[in-house]
Amino acid sequence: MSASAVNDFNDTIVALATPRGVGAIGIVRLSGPRSIDIANGIFKGKDLSGQASHTIHFGKIVDGESIVDEVLVSLFIAPRSFTKEDVVEISTHGSPFILEKVVKLLLKNGARLAKAGEFTQRAFLNGQFDLAQAEAVADLINSDSEATHMAAMHQMRGGFSRKIKALREELIHFASMIELELDFAEEDVEFASRAGLTELINNLQKEIAKLIESFTVGNVIKNGVPTVIAGKPNAGKSTLLNTLLEEEKAIVSDIPGTTRDFIEDEIHIDGISFRFIDTAGIREARDKIEAIGIERTKARMKAASVIIYLVDLCKERAQEIREENEKLQAMGIPYLLVGNKSDKLESSELDTIQKQFPGMICISASDEWHIDQLKQELIERIHLGDFKTGDTIVTNLRHIDGLTKTQAVLDDVLQGIGNQVTGDFLAMDLRQALHHLGEITGEITTEDLLGNIFNKFCIGK
Amino acid sequence: MSASAVNDFNDTIVALATPRGVGAIGIVRLSGPRSIDIANGIFKGKDLSGQASHTIHFGKIVDGESIVDEVLVSLFIAPRSFTKEDVVEISTHGSPFILEKVVKLLLKNGARLAKAGEFTQRAFLNGQFDLAQAEAVADLINSDSEATHMAAMHQMRGGFSRKIKALREELIHFASMIELELDFAEEDVEFASRAGLTELINNLQKEIAKLIESFTVGNVIKNGVPTVIAGKPNAGKSTLLNTLLEEEKAIVSDIPGTTRDFIEDEIHIDGISFRFIDTAGIREARDKIEAIGIERTKARMKAASVIIYLVDLCKERAQEIREENEKLQAMGIPYLLVGNKSDKLESSELDTIQKQFPGMICISASDEWHIDQLKQELIERIHLGDFKTGDTIVTNLRHIDGLTKTQAVLDDVLQGIGNQVTGDFLAMDLRQALHHLGEITGEITTEDLLGNIFNKFCIGK
Repeated sequence: MSASAVNDFNDTIVALATPRGVGAIGIVRLSGPRSIDIANGIFKGKDLSGQASHTIHFGKIVDGESIVDEVLVSLFIAPRSFTKEDVVEISTHGSPFILEKVVKLLLKNGARLAKAGEFTQRAFLNGQFDLAQAEAVADLINSDSEATHMAAMHQMRGGFSRKIKALREELIHFASMIELELDFAEEDVEFASRAGLTELINNLQKEIAKLIESFTVGNVIKNGVPTVIAGKPNAGKSTLLNTLLEEEKAIVSDIPGTTRDFIEDEIHIDGISFRFIDTAGIREARDKIEAIGIERTKARMKAASVIIYLVDLCKERAQEIREENEKLQAMGIPYLLVGNKSDKLESSELDTIQKQFPGMICISASDEWHIDQLKQELIERIHLGDFKTGDTIVTNLRHIDGLTKTQAVLDDVLQGIGNQVTGDFLAMDLRQALHHLGEITGEITTEDLLGNIFNKFCIGK
Repeated sequence: MSASAVNDFNDTIVALATPRGVGAIGIVRLSGPRSIDIANGIFKGKDLSGQASHTIHFGKIVDGESIVDEVLVSLFIAPRSFTKEDVVEISTHGSPFILEKVVKLLLKNGARLAKAGEFTQRAFLNGQFDLAQAEAVADLINSDSEATHMAAMHQMRGGFSRKIKALREELIHFASMIELELDFAEEDVEFASRAGLTELINNLQKEIAKLIESFTVGNVIKNGVPTVIAGKPNAGKSTLLNTLLEEEKAIVSDIPGTTRDFIEDEIHIDGISFRFIDTAGIREARDKIEAIGIERTKARMKAASVIIYLVDLCKERAQEIREENEKLQAMGIPYLLVGNKSDKLESSELDTIQKQFPGMICISASDEWHIDQLKQELIERIHLGDFKTGDTIVTNLRHIDGLTKTQAVLDDVLQGIGNQVTGDFLAMDLRQALHHLGEITGEITTEDLLGNIFNKFCIGK
């Protein structure tokens, strides 16, 4: 199956395009050869067929005699649409009841309910964009922070695809040279210089290694950083959590009506989201038997990417803190040692403690003192490497899988060249590498591969 | 303030128009004189100014150098828009993060965040529709059943308004005649025949009484029917509730992706919703001390519009059932006497019981036997009068208030005519009646009145 050919789907799909729920406007979208015809069948107003692309028409959606809604219909004539097919968007009053009714009417008129991701899949199969870009559409829609948004936008606009395609182009050249050698096998010519190939592959491996490395950052960007607040009972864990979350709420809710649903127990620092693990436990902790808490905390700490360890500066002695610090070090997980309740100490006492534990951040969770410093240390503790926001960052597990497989095959090629294996073996490995890279951008696809990708989309996308 | 004059708002408002949450598409809407100008400032593509109305333009939303999203921009040039102002709709990928960002950029560029209902308010003030129709927009968006949808659509399309305006026109004629008499007071002429006025008002009162009566239905349509399932412990109350709700779930979820959020503990029969009161209590009932349950049930039953009283046919004897039936009758609330667990009885036993209690519906909640019959009896128990679905039905408390006040004033007029009061008194009452009717359709408005109405809308509408 080739991605560049324009496919001729002969059915017309329909789905709700806007989020579920009540709003001022809701949109039902049709795509396929009969979109305009099917919409026309339930539309009372101008005749929609023969109208220009990118025009909007006012009228009524009718179910026999009864009026379902007054609507605006937007027309996108193939190939000037998202899917490169005829697309009709019906913009209704944002009532779930009306939207459901309109979808049902369109189904009755010959449309078929779209499968998950089917609009985007059609766009891909009709050559609107490649596979990595199609995947970025889903990432873009799900982006909920500056960093996820930027990574998805970069990928959707083809930044990552260009890189993979460039790598592939270079390999193709050598692969075809070696294939050529096979045709002239008896003559023992060498069209592809082995030294040149080695150099090329070394360079490719460097590029691929960098992309694979970027996934550490990509993963952090996409999935957030699992974070745990730990410490002895009454160290102020829930106060700190509430302070961090309250601040976050204030940030995200400054535009009423547009605020995204607040994801509980998550904060954003420099566009990276830190998700607090099992904070329900922290909040309940006061009322719980301590013994249960300890086991649970240990399990939680192991699942974390970073630990905020709270010390009660009023109660805990230097020796105690030192022991806790050693235990934390032994765990091998990045952590911050944080002294709480600084406000209850004399400044001279605070100085003494800071001298004893230079790495400790002294805060007051209740007075919101040094919370910004804590957040800055938190972001520094996450190793983001040298990646800049404009860089190509791999965020997709499927892409990493393809890159890792390519890396392994190219290692085989290098080894083969070293062992002076014959061209046909090299050619086989190179074809394999081309296959893996091609699957990333969708130059090579299978039904299964597409199914796996687009099934994860929601219906309507 | 007059509704028919086109107002010159000099600020441009912006809000999210689609429901919150993640979807394929989200829309940010601008309305006001600078809509196109402000959108142009963050849009990279064609110059939006000078483009035709009802056209769609592809391009990018940019924040300085960085791309926020690839979008479609729809233009509606005044007065060919919902608000009769220049309106721009920016259709983005349906990410709450992106939508929030676009709104923020537009605010930075000179738009103002729309207040609740401000788009619809502008549409009203610019003469797009009258006040009752504007209110119907909100009702339409919130409609969640066939009946609410039909009533709102009828009202939005001006059915109710035409009726009120017709009543008012007739009064205006007589009012002006009487005002004319006042100008010629010394000459003792009677331009307005008292007999004619009496006849007119009697007719108006009939019309108004019918509208007021329709509110019983309107209220049922809009707010649903509070329903209680009562009965002795283990009569099968929670089984019946679950059977009814499971069936409802199956009905509403037949189109994935478009289904409205399921409102727990509500079922629809013939487009009317029956809401089960305090069903949490029913479900917990088994584990609760019975004494608490009884008091609670009594309170619940008094709040209901209809009671489903369940009898355990295996356990309860005829005498017991007779007593319960009498108690129910004494409450004066419509009820259904329902015999449960029919499946456990021999058919001869069942016949005997049916003969003893001809009004009782025998069902089996667990076997889903005769549930349809139960539902039909339920809808019949709700007195919907002789109203047909196409009739004008008042669903709005504000409208009923206006109609009731009009009714009282017109009674005064009739009494005045009977007592042969002078024209100036009649004129005063008629002016008052005109005022009340005018407030319904918004021919007469005050800031307060508008505030009360549109504050109840959501932002973006």
